[in-house]
Amino acid sequence: MSHKIVVAFGGKELQSARNIASAEDQIKVVKDLAEKLAEISARGYDLGIVHGNGPQVGRIMLASETSKDITPQMPFDVCGAMSQGYIGYHIQQALKYALNLRGINVPVVSVATQIIVDEKDPAFNNPTKPIGPHYTEEQANEYKEKLGYDIVNDAPGSFRRIVASPMPKKIVEIASIKQLWEKCVVICCGGGGIPVIENADGTYTGVEAVIDKDHSAELLAENVSAEVLIILTDVEKVSLNYGKENQVDLDKLNLKEASKYIEEGQFPAGNMLPKVEACMRFVRSNPTKKAIITSLDKVVDALDGKTGTVFSFA
Amino acid sequence: MSHKIVVAFGGKELQSARNIASAEDQIKVVKDLAEKLAEISARGYDLGIVHGNGPQVGRIMLASETSKDITPQMPFDVCGAMSQGYIGYHIQQALKYALNLRGINVPVVSVATQIIVDEKDPAFNNPTKPIGPHYTEEQANEYKEKLGYDIVNDAPGSFRRIVASPMPKKIVEIASIKQLWEKCVVICCGGGGIPVIENADGTYTGVEAVIDKDHSAELLAENVSAEVLIILTDVEKVSLNYGKENQVDLDKLNLKEASKYIEEGQFPAGNMLPKVEACMRFVRSNPTKKAIITSLDKVVDALDGKTGTVFSFA
Repeated sequence: MSHKIVVAFGGKELQSARNIASAEDQIKVVKDLAEKLAEISARGYDLGIVHGNGPQVGRIMLASETSKDITPQMPFDVCGAMSQGYIGYHIQQALKYALNLRGINVPVVSVATQIIVDEKDPAFNNPTKPIGPHYTEEQANEYKEKLGYDIVNDAPGSFRRIVASPMPKKIVEIASIKQLWEKCVVICCGGGGIPVIENADGTYTGVEAVIDKDHSAELLAENVSAEVLIILTDVEKVSLNYGKENQVDLDKLNLKEASKYIEEGQFPAGNMLPKVEACMRFVRSNPTKKAIITSLDKVVDALDGKTGTVFSFA
Repeated sequence: MSHKIVVAFGGKELQSARNIASAEDQIKVVKDLAEKLAEISARGYDLGIVHGNGPQVGRIMLASETSKDITPQMPFDVCGAMSQGYIGYHIQQALKYALNLRGINVPVVSVATQIIVDEKDPAFNNPTKPIGPHYTEEQANEYKEKLGYDIVNDAPGSFRRIVASPMPKKIVEIASIKQLWEKCVVICCGGGGIPVIENADGTYTGVEAVIDKDHSAELLAENVSAEVLIILTDVEKVSLNYGKENQVDLDKLNLKEASKYIEEGQFPAGNMLPKVEACMRFVRSNPTKKAIITSLDKVVDALDGKTGTVFSFA
């Protein structure tokens, strides 16, 4: 019997430091990541990978915007598609090698993925996700006026564009992804997927939004009937009172407890909150399944039941 | 019995005019292209698609180079991967719709593709393929010195970087591509594939080169045992004495004739020559197979045997 697993991690997990954002740096970081992913595969799991793309798509947008007087600026959905090509290529290359080293002869393939969102998703009325470069107040005002950007003043003197973060409804390429999963490691839904809306005539149109990759990974895990959803972050376990004197790291969380902690505001939006919500949705969809939040370093130990925060239905 | 077909076309076939290179323009052009591709599928062919990426990757490089003091410049292999994401996304979107209209419920999927080239390919000693922006003489000299670029003076006052155009040896993702072909329309080997060399330890490394997409399409067609390889260009048929008073359009070409015309210098390098050579290699690999060169407009007629230049073994 196959054990399918979806492993999700952020785009920032692909850079060695906040300000080192070159492709040359990324390929080095991806090599270490690939070692861990290959270990998961070596444990007999059929692996699917969902990566974020925050810093990467930000850099692509920055380059495109900076050169817009010389060559046409790329819309955001296309920047997302480009980031899927960029990151998918690097993971394909590094993971194939790490698998080879372990004698695992499995193809690694990355699939450009569109995900349908609901045009009426309330998120579109309340954009929250910062994307692209930091602007000066002058630039911010210009873009607000000329391009209709929603802008937030995120730090003194720093302004950023914000877009909606709607929920993923349907993975357009799911049939292909399922088929590939039978024999390959599949990299898909990169950056949370390219968000598209379904028009009345059945066409899709890319929208300027960001789907949280944790939610896309969860939808994928449901769609392929994965046994395990594992979301990697920079901490080994989910905590209460994070960073305070009375911090408590959690070994496990059931739906009732998790809901209570969310109400208490224990998990910051745009960071731990979507991860916790995605894990909750996954075990709610099927109480026999397992969802785990842990760090990349500890991912193999967590799969072995030694660490991480494990979510359960009850 | 399934009839597999590989359809190849250039990146410039995805723009409405030489200087209109926006994503918004491309998606419109891709819609027309998708109609033709869907017609091919409606004729019962299992379709694989290989697109070029010349203008697109040129724009990506231009944006990356222009903004290199602000955000790290992307190496050429990564730019290629990005162009695969960009173009694959657009074709996926448009073709799925065109297929739906015809009641063909087949997934369309694009796969990031690496292709192994031989480090010792003589092409590396003789770079011929212009890539990226046009430079002034001053810029050209700077890049030559600082970055070791090979530069060609391609027109008065215009300088461009040239890279090698080695032959494709092996499609890294071929196993996944074959598997997908059973049930999907597969977009792969985009831009001729991301050229990589295979290192002694089994790792791959991206190289700064361009594989001609016609040769990659041919390798793909051989690998999947396609019945037909069709290469689209801006003319309906291959011609002798092209553009001259005594121009002759060819309905068919066998290997012997084609070799003779190549010797005569009838087909320009970097344009019709690689197309003719790819078609020759395909029918040489299996004399029962068919290779065709024609225009996008005429592609369906050509498949019906009404036009195009059809290559045969003898």
